[in-house]
Amino acid sequence: MQGIWVTELQTPHLALSCRVKKTLHWEKTPYQELSIVDTEAFGRMLLLDDVIQTTVKDEFVYHEMIAHVPLNTHPHPREVLVIGGGDGGAIREIIKHASVTRAVLVEIDARVVATAREYLPEIACGLDDTRVEIRFEDGIDHVRRFEAQYDVIIVDSTDPVGPAAGLFTREFYQNVFKALKPDGLFVAQTESPFFNAEFIRRVYHDIASVFPITRIYLATIPTYPGGLWTFSLGSKEYDPLAVDPARIPRLPTRYYSPEVHRAAFILPPFVQEILHSEEEKEKI
Amino acid sequence: MQGIWVTELQTPHLALSCRVKKTLHWEKTPYQELSIVDTEAFGRMLLLDDVIQTTVKDEFVYHEMIAHVPLNTHPHPREVLVIGGGDGGAIREIIKHASVTRAVLVEIDARVVATAREYLPEIACGLDDTRVEIRFEDGIDHVRRFEAQYDVIIVDSTDPVGPAAGLFTREFYQNVFKALKPDGLFVAQTESPFFNAEFIRRVYHDIASVFPITRIYLATIPTYPGGLWTFSLGSKEYDPLAVDPARIPRLPTRYYSPEVHRAAFILPPFVQEILHSEEEKEKI
Repeated sequence: MQGIWVTELQTPHLALSCRVKKTLHWEKTPYQELSIVDTEAFGRMLLLDDVIQTTVKDEFVYHEMIAHVPLNTHPHPREVLVIGGGDGGAIREIIKHASVTRAVLVEIDARVVATAREYLPEIACGLDDTRVEIRFEDGIDHVRRFEAQYDVIIVDSTDPVGPAAGLFTREFYQNVFKALKPDGLFVAQTESPFFNAEFIRRVYHDIASVFPITRIYLATIPTYPGGLWTFSLGSKEYDPLAVDPARIPRLPTRYYSPEVHRAAFILPPFVQEILHSEEEKEKI
Repeated sequence: MQGIWVTELQTPHLALSCRVKKTLHWEKTPYQELSIVDTEAFGRMLLLDDVIQTTVKDEFVYHEMIAHVPLNTHPHPREVLVIGGGDGGAIREIIKHASVTRAVLVEIDARVVATAREYLPEIACGLDDTRVEIRFEDGIDHVRRFEAQYDVIIVDSTDPVGPAAGLFTREFYQNVFKALKPDGLFVAQTESPFFNAEFIRRVYHDIASVFPITRIYLATIPTYPGGLWTFSLGSKEYDPLAVDPARIPRLPTRYYSPEVHRAAFILPPFVQEILHSEEEKEKI
């Protein structure tokens, strides 16, 4: 391993390293350390506090799956909120949906958006769409202030530590419920079943205590620890499993498809087991 | 990254590192360097020439998916051949099938089997089953010598470099075809769609030039480069997509299930695109 490498300590015991072609940007924002490096394996890469957030090579998996699954579960999503997601990738996918009239991006750190616009134009390219509103504020405060406003809310956050921890609490899910219209739904990225099983179980039960429909789905993102990644969805009315694949529009996507929509909810037994707490197992 | 770590250079530009609790074994066999290390993230790990082959934590994904997909595609698999797979993981899954009367393991390196028996008993535990025959010989030579012998052949090899390169040629697939019964089928591990797209395309077309039915399926294996992994299947008669999930027996598995069997063949568009060569695209 000679030369220049960027290394993420994915867990205290696991590290992923990529050879660096060029370090393009580094700064300390009011919220975090932000860097952009160009890597041989994944192209340009955005890191926050030394954790890989997205890369040009594999971002399509994450952004397509966090956006199109909820937006195709809702039969006519008009107003969509993204919390976090300052790179613009989720917004780029959302505005592919003709039904969407308004996409609000609530990102706490204005420097993430500015830096993505400069160095990751293929990801940030949707941010100038006329339907997009960008607000630099705390997502937790934002959902507290709204009632029956959004059709879909997407929590595109960093890992559940530090400022993002508040995006993974029962109280936050209650405020998301309130900010959604009576038939609204939300989705959040919720970490790895190989390394964060207890976390996924807690989030699942917290969402299920607030929303009538709770589902987990999977996608494989090479730069995230373990590759296999969960998304957790809470819905007031529409079940993502009840969507007729034939009714899903064929959008230009590279990972998501109407067939992948359904397959993503097929959970291997070890992931199903995570969702059932010890108490529930005792009851069975 | 203080302390003792084991690092695999997964590509020339990408490295995975695991913190080491203890190095249990190292030797130079006649064929390769073989080591067993106990890691915090994945438990005990087998490396050949410094490439991670299997770990106690994630081996179930690979071994279940390479064994149960072909064995449940065949309606009554009796004689099964594994080429490579000296750790015994594929054999452990194969002998869960009551129809199997004979499981032959052809591993070139006797030291892999002996070391797995000593240090990876939870993986090697099936090797003492009375239906299992172990032969220390070259898998390429083995299939050349047999005709209409096997129901299922599983190529559980190292990466397609060095001695394993001969397991990924059109000539080898022709010999596999010959060694299979008239309704036989085979499967091989065939690398990452993120990093080995050209390789996967070539293998797919080579298999398709020999077998009437060719299919690719996916599973996510955290310790393999990119996580997302392909398996390629060539079949004389039975189509893995035509299997009725209701007829698949419920075996004790943690990743594979009748539902996962079907979902694994749902390929994201970027994987589907890999299978179509440039010439074919021009024809369309």
